[in-house]
Amino acid sequence: MASVCILDEFHVHKNEEFLSIAEELKPDLIRTEVTPQRLLKLERNEHPEPEITEEEPVDHLKEKVLKKDDSIILDFGNHYVGYVTLELASVGSHQDAPAYIYLKFAERLDELTTDISAYNGWISKGWIQEEYLHVDVLPEKLVLPRRYAFRYLEIKVLDVSLKFSLVVQDVKLQSVSAVREEMVPAIQTEDVLLRKIDQVSIRTLKNCMQLVFEDGPKRDRRMWLGDLRLQARANYKTFGHKDMVKRCLYLFGGLTFNEGKIPACLFLEPEIEPDDTYLYDYALLYGSVLLDYYQETGDEKTLQDLYPVAIRQIEIGLTYLTEDNVIPDRSGEFWCFVDWGEGLNTQACSLAILIYAMRYGIRLAECMKDTQTKQWLSEKIQVLKQSAIDHFWDEGKQLFVSGPDRQISWATQVWMILARVFDQEKNRALILHTIEVNPRIRMVTPYMYHHYIDALIRSGEKERALEEMKRYWGEMIHDGADTFWELYNPFNKYESPYGSVAVNSFCHAWSCTPTYFLRKFYLTEEGDVKK
Amino acid sequence: MASVCILDEFHVHKNEEFLSIAEELKPDLIRTEVTPQRLLKLERNEHPEPEITEEEPVDHLKEKVLKKDDSIILDFGNHYVGYVTLELASVGSHQDAPAYIYLKFAERLDELTTDISAYNGWISKGWIQEEYLHVDVLPEKLVLPRRYAFRYLEIKVLDVSLKFSLVVQDVKLQSVSAVREEMVPAIQTEDVLLRKIDQVSIRTLKNCMQLVFEDGPKRDRRMWLGDLRLQARANYKTFGHKDMVKRCLYLFGGLTFNEGKIPACLFLEPEIEPDDTYLYDYALLYGSVLLDYYQETGDEKTLQDLYPVAIRQIEIGLTYLTEDNVIPDRSGEFWCFVDWGEGLNTQACSLAILIYAMRYGIRLAECMKDTQTKQWLSEKIQVLKQSAIDHFWDEGKQLFVSGPDRQISWATQVWMILARVFDQEKNRALILHTIEVNPRIRMVTPYMYHHYIDALIRSGEKERALEEMKRYWGEMIHDGADTFWELYNPFNKYESPYGSVAVNSFCHAWSCTPTYFLRKFYLTEEGDVKK
Repeated sequence: MASVCILDEFHVHKNEEFLSIAEELKPDLIRTEVTPQRLLKLERNEHPEPEITEEEPVDHLKEKVLKKDDSIILDFGNHYVGYVTLELASVGSHQDAPAYIYLKFAERLDELTTDISAYNGWISKGWIQEEYLHVDVLPEKLVLPRRYAFRYLEIKVLDVSLKFSLVVQDVKLQSVSAVREEMVPAIQTEDVLLRKIDQVSIRTLKNCMQLVFEDGPKRDRRMWLGDLRLQARANYKTFGHKDMVKRCLYLFGGLTFNEGKIPACLFLEPEIEPDDTYLYDYALLYGSVLLDYYQETGDEKTLQDLYPVAIRQIEIGLTYLTEDNVIPDRSGEFWCFVDWGEGLNTQACSLAILIYAMRYGIRLAECMKDTQTKQWLSEKIQVLKQSAIDHFWDEGKQLFVSGPDRQISWATQVWMILARVFDQEKNRALILHTIEVNPRIRMVTPYMYHHYIDALIRSGEKERALEEMKRYWGEMIHDGADTFWELYNPFNKYESPYGSVAVNSFCHAWSCTPTYFLRKFYLTEEGDVKK
Repeated sequence: MASVCILDEFHVHKNEEFLSIAEELKPDLIRTEVTPQRLLKLERNEHPEPEITEEEPVDHLKEKVLKKDDSIILDFGNHYVGYVTLELASVGSHQDAPAYIYLKFAERLDELTTDISAYNGWISKGWIQEEYLHVDVLPEKLVLPRRYAFRYLEIKVLDVSLKFSLVVQDVKLQSVSAVREEMVPAIQTEDVLLRKIDQVSIRTLKNCMQLVFEDGPKRDRRMWLGDLRLQARANYKTFGHKDMVKRCLYLFGGLTFNEGKIPACLFLEPEIEPDDTYLYDYALLYGSVLLDYYQETGDEKTLQDLYPVAIRQIEIGLTYLTEDNVIPDRSGEFWCFVDWGEGLNTQACSLAILIYAMRYGIRLAECMKDTQTKQWLSEKIQVLKQSAIDHFWDEGKQLFVSGPDRQISWATQVWMILARVFDQEKNRALILHTIEVNPRIRMVTPYMYHHYIDALIRSGEKERALEEMKRYWGEMIHDGADTFWELYNPFNKYESPYGSVAVNSFCHAWSCTPTYFLRKFYLTEEGDVKK
């Protein structure tokens, strides 16, 4: 289902002071030269994932004399984000025609064997990292202007001529990020999978940390508020780049629209601008990002500047309530994100997330010593918790339901737990019951899984949370993830919300939080992970 | 049939003095801004040539809001060579994905509807003027780095997104040439077709006059000696850019190989270099280019510098003679060009062209007062003329034959006439008889037609020559030529020597000579064309 929001009325309010604070915090990117590690040959078989049939050392590259339809696949050994330079030459007679080449950058191997021409999804195929290039004069040092996110690069000769062949003398990548992986000490544990999950989380986060916290360096290459919240949490426990969180908080705070809403995402180019997309849950979660930041930094100035913006989101959130104190169902629209699951009803979640945001609002008000706001929020939250139970709790099923069809989903239970509609003991019973019932409407994004893990921990199920984390993120590792993916449904590994995995992002910010959980909840004082 | 020459032994002798003379004569290109004239809509039908179903003024361009799969076709009103800048913008919400566009530059309309994916010819499909481009940030002024030769430009949106559309705000072309069409006064005649033929010849020549005389600005974008000879002749009668001829003569003279052979063509980039291609006829014709130049300019220095190079080609040409004084048949190789006609046997032509070159050699020797060379050339030419008659004249058929199968072609008769194997009266009878017999092995290139027209004129058939010129080049005009084509077979208008007309060149130097004939043989002192 195509899911976009286009607002007819969209009046942006730029807070120039906030934007200039953000601008001053713009990071310098760290540039690192990376060379390919090996040459691969692939074979398609009946599986979506191709088989590697041959490996060669990369110093064989120069010996490859490429004629029409020949191709080489370079493996850079890991996932990187950056800029590529190709040194191309000809052999044989003098070049007598343009060399016509095709480049394909792939985060995962199966992107190289997916038939792109068949792509007919609802997001732009412009996201597929391919280029058709004519090289009129060889030798040529081809400095590609675009940034790519990839591990594999296929170079295919569409045509040369009968008189000359192409040789790829060298390929270099200048990888970019605001941080270095080496800044973060590894966790100490005998558990290889946990070490790997931590590492891959950190690499995912690093590759998304550019001029802002991007959601995915392949796609969408912009900052979404929901992703920012999780990135910031992982960042505090790893790179500790607090200025980047501050910058992003000021950017969202400085680019509100209409009655003061925070947009769901910001574009960076040609200048930083908000998208005309309002996501109810994302906007409400701004306060949580702010509180996290304040708790990490004690930065009073930022709290004072941005507190009104956070509270405004709650005020706006409350305006959507009916007289019955529920949020009307807008599951048919791209309005309250929650998860990418097909058919997920988000009505109950939207109320739960409003309550969750109010919890953070109360804590922000406490920090600000704003007793009046604390007062009305505390009163209203009780009303809404009761409303959640009245409208969505199914006593018979012992589960929350959502929407006109009283849908039972994992997401609804998770968010009701995080909203603390019930106390911890009842939440614990609820999450265990949910696991037992295993509702058909599952979670498909690491974003939603993050909240599930969080809900387990907050319900006192730390051990189970660790198991679930290993099961979900660990399974991605088993499936070859160098960075964690935007979408992962263990029951349907080639699921895409867009119509094809060709446009899925395989390094996606919202999936980086295992490192946050491990380092916040499981690390001992010696830095070891408690088993 | 794939026709290329790859020499195993290829030792280039650079004459630095000659090359520096050539370098000093490098022209400054004249840059002229050109704007599109109209917007077109096409429909494919059962004919190769599509139908124009709609025309719009170009100021509607900005109003075209382009979604996925939409395209626009711009008509620049005439054939140009140059560099294109596109001003692109988005409408709708903020651009949230790369705009992915496809550009197709076409000399002729049918290039826009030809299915390129089906191209499987033997020359590189890299010559097809198409680009796939990602535009990450809109608005963008896209300055395309490559040079194109075209009249039509199709811009197709491969993808945008659900949230924004593409608008082409403006398209500009900076056309380049070493000369301006306005430098040449039009011929005066009531005959509209002749005026048009002259104009189109001049435009063809202009668009091929770049840093050297190129053969075709779309393909091959280099200097072939056979084309140079005809371009120089047309140039003397029109632009009079004698320095460019001088430059090109010095370039060929300065880049010989092996025993002193002149290569068939030169590449311009990355620096000027010869191709490892020897064409027997092209090398021999160098002396004719030199004599033409000397007669136009009286430039003694150039004559003295390059005379030895010209004579050396004849000496080398003679080394191929058998004891029987014929050139062995090498029609299966790309060795003696003559014409692109499928199955043409070139054995008799190669002897005829050797004799033709010797005629020019004798005249060059006279200019140089080199009596010794004149002496031996004059003696040898008589032997070869007799050999031509002995070996190739079929008394019964009253035609020249060629090769082991005694093939009768138009080309053989034409070159024997130009070689003056017979006297003018007998040549006249021969050409008229050829026309009557109409040999099945026809002429397909304007290059060969040039020699046919020349043969008619030299045989005293000026009126018929004019008729034939109007018939052949005029037919191209009727078929929509803005510039004259590389290949034109009136009996098979979509013939290509390469496997598809998609890679044919439709502005090709060797087709520009009607203006030479008109201005040399048909213009009165008042500048009118004699009817």
